[in-house]
Amino acid sequence: MSFELTILGNSSSTPTSRRHPSAQVLKINNDFILIDCGEGTQNQMLRYKVSHNKIRYIFISHMHGDHFLGLPGLLCTMSVQGRIDDLDIYCPEELEFLINLQFSLSDVQLKFKVVYHKLQFDAPKEILATRDYTVTSLPLKHRINCAGFLFSERVYGRKINKQEADPLNLNQAEYENLRNGGDYKGKDGKTIPNAKLTFDPRKSFKYAYITDTLYDEELLPHIERFDLLYHEATFAHDMVDRAKTTFHCTALQAGKIASRAKVGKLIIGHFSARYQNLEELLEEAKDVFPRSDIAEEGKTFKMR
Amino acid sequence: MSFELTILGNSSSTPTSRRHPSAQVLKINNDFILIDCGEGTQNQMLRYKVSHNKIRYIFISHMHGDHFLGLPGLLCTMSVQGRIDDLDIYCPEELEFLINLQFSLSDVQLKFKVVYHKLQFDAPKEILATRDYTVTSLPLKHRINCAGFLFSERVYGRKINKQEADPLNLNQAEYENLRNGGDYKGKDGKTIPNAKLTFDPRKSFKYAYITDTLYDEELLPHIERFDLLYHEATFAHDMVDRAKTTFHCTALQAGKIASRAKVGKLIIGHFSARYQNLEELLEEAKDVFPRSDIAEEGKTFKMR
Repeated sequence: MSFELTILGNSSSTPTSRRHPSAQVLKINNDFILIDCGEGTQNQMLRYKVSHNKIRYIFISHMHGDHFLGLPGLLCTMSVQGRIDDLDIYCPEELEFLINLQFSLSDVQLKFKVVYHKLQFDAPKEILATRDYTVTSLPLKHRINCAGFLFSERVYGRKINKQEADPLNLNQAEYENLRNGGDYKGKDGKTIPNAKLTFDPRKSFKYAYITDTLYDEELLPHIERFDLLYHEATFAHDMVDRAKTTFHCTALQAGKIASRAKVGKLIIGHFSARYQNLEELLEEAKDVFPRSDIAEEGKTFKMR
Repeated sequence: MSFELTILGNSSSTPTSRRHPSAQVLKINNDFILIDCGEGTQNQMLRYKVSHNKIRYIFISHMHGDHFLGLPGLLCTMSVQGRIDDLDIYCPEELEFLINLQFSLSDVQLKFKVVYHKLQFDAPKEILATRDYTVTSLPLKHRINCAGFLFSERVYGRKINKQEADPLNLNQAEYENLRNGGDYKGKDGKTIPNAKLTFDPRKSFKYAYITDTLYDEELLPHIERFDLLYHEATFAHDMVDRAKTTFHCTALQAGKIASRAKVGKLIIGHFSARYQNLEELLEEAKDVFPRSDIAEEGKTFKMR
């Protein structure tokens, strides 16, 4: 299964001349998933050659403008470009209301159906399950309701050791039993333990998108040993007080979360416009968690 | 008086990788006026070094997203950047409702006051008068209510011919009478005609912003002999039928309006994303009206 994450925007509420508000595209096999959609996302998609109409799912973390203001324009463009496929949007329910109102005031009729799925913010919740992966929303601690999103590859049972298993001439039910971890019971009454006939399944690939949150150790059990963590790092640590009052994090705190959750790799983003040079923030994160990287706009992280 | 027009966006509803939806900044003396505010306008302002907080007035022509979707983000950025001055926005009343609703859902409190002025679409109407200029809204023929905007320099009366008038030792009232075109009546009963003591006033500079409209000759008397006309030219003329059904114009039609209104200069904009090369549209307009130009993003037209 392939996992690619392309960063479209890495700025917090105020953009700079070179940086754009939050948006990224996660490609899992052939599914293109847009996560947050700040103002200008449709232009960033054009710039980095992400086709608007390939997007299958959209996830919007919360109702701050830098995370959703690009959505109405993107939907109109999809329609103008001839989209007819349904589009599933997972977002706060207020966003559905706002977009429908705006389209009604602008006399816009989309040529495709948008299916809105209302996020809940009281507890983690699996909100999407496909053949290849699941998505879970995770409440974050921000000024308003905000959700992180956890993407987990589905792994189907143990892998059959063909060399050992095939000579037994198993039927489908017996193969299924092996994949589920059961031992083989032959017609002669002999049992062959599962471990002899199967291999461990491939580890499920896991990606966590955590934006707009206070430093919050309660996240740790939910993202433990994830392969990839995107975590907001709005400020450098000398502004930790400002981070706290605005319900944001510092780069050092992002590194700390990554380190304590023992993730494979950390990408920091959602940078305040005051930072011209992002190296300062990266160095801070790396001090605590060396496998850190910057959410550089246009960059694609190929994870598998 | 100085007039400068800077183009920030020239695309119609669908942007391209290099073009952005409608927005332009008109600078009259020290007043910065934003006309329309498509998605990404705040980024375009950063790119072309137009300070967000210098904007004194905003005019929004209509409720199609490519003309206003950049406004909520821009207002938030102005607030974050410390604006405290009132901001006057002239727009359809639905936009005030929509923005207030969004800010309430996003828990945004601006640190400055926005004064909304509701546009009317039944007849031309003077909507702003400053010491230096007036602004008139002009109903256009589009799918939904849409207004053009006419900017007219105010010229204060006739110019005094100092060489002739000063030796007469006039008082303030007598000078004012001359400026208003009256003759001079001396204490000796003699009359000196106004023409001997004054010069003609400077011609008022006039700019018309006409976007999103059918080809409409009813506009002509309202923009006659204007110095500068921005007119939409969404399509080339081989698509005149499509222009008609979508309530837009072709470049040739824009040239025709400019020619018949005998304006000084035409700038065409609001181009469909299908045109990679805008020269085709410019040539078409120039065939009918040679003093035509392209609304190139980042270009400043210094008119006086």
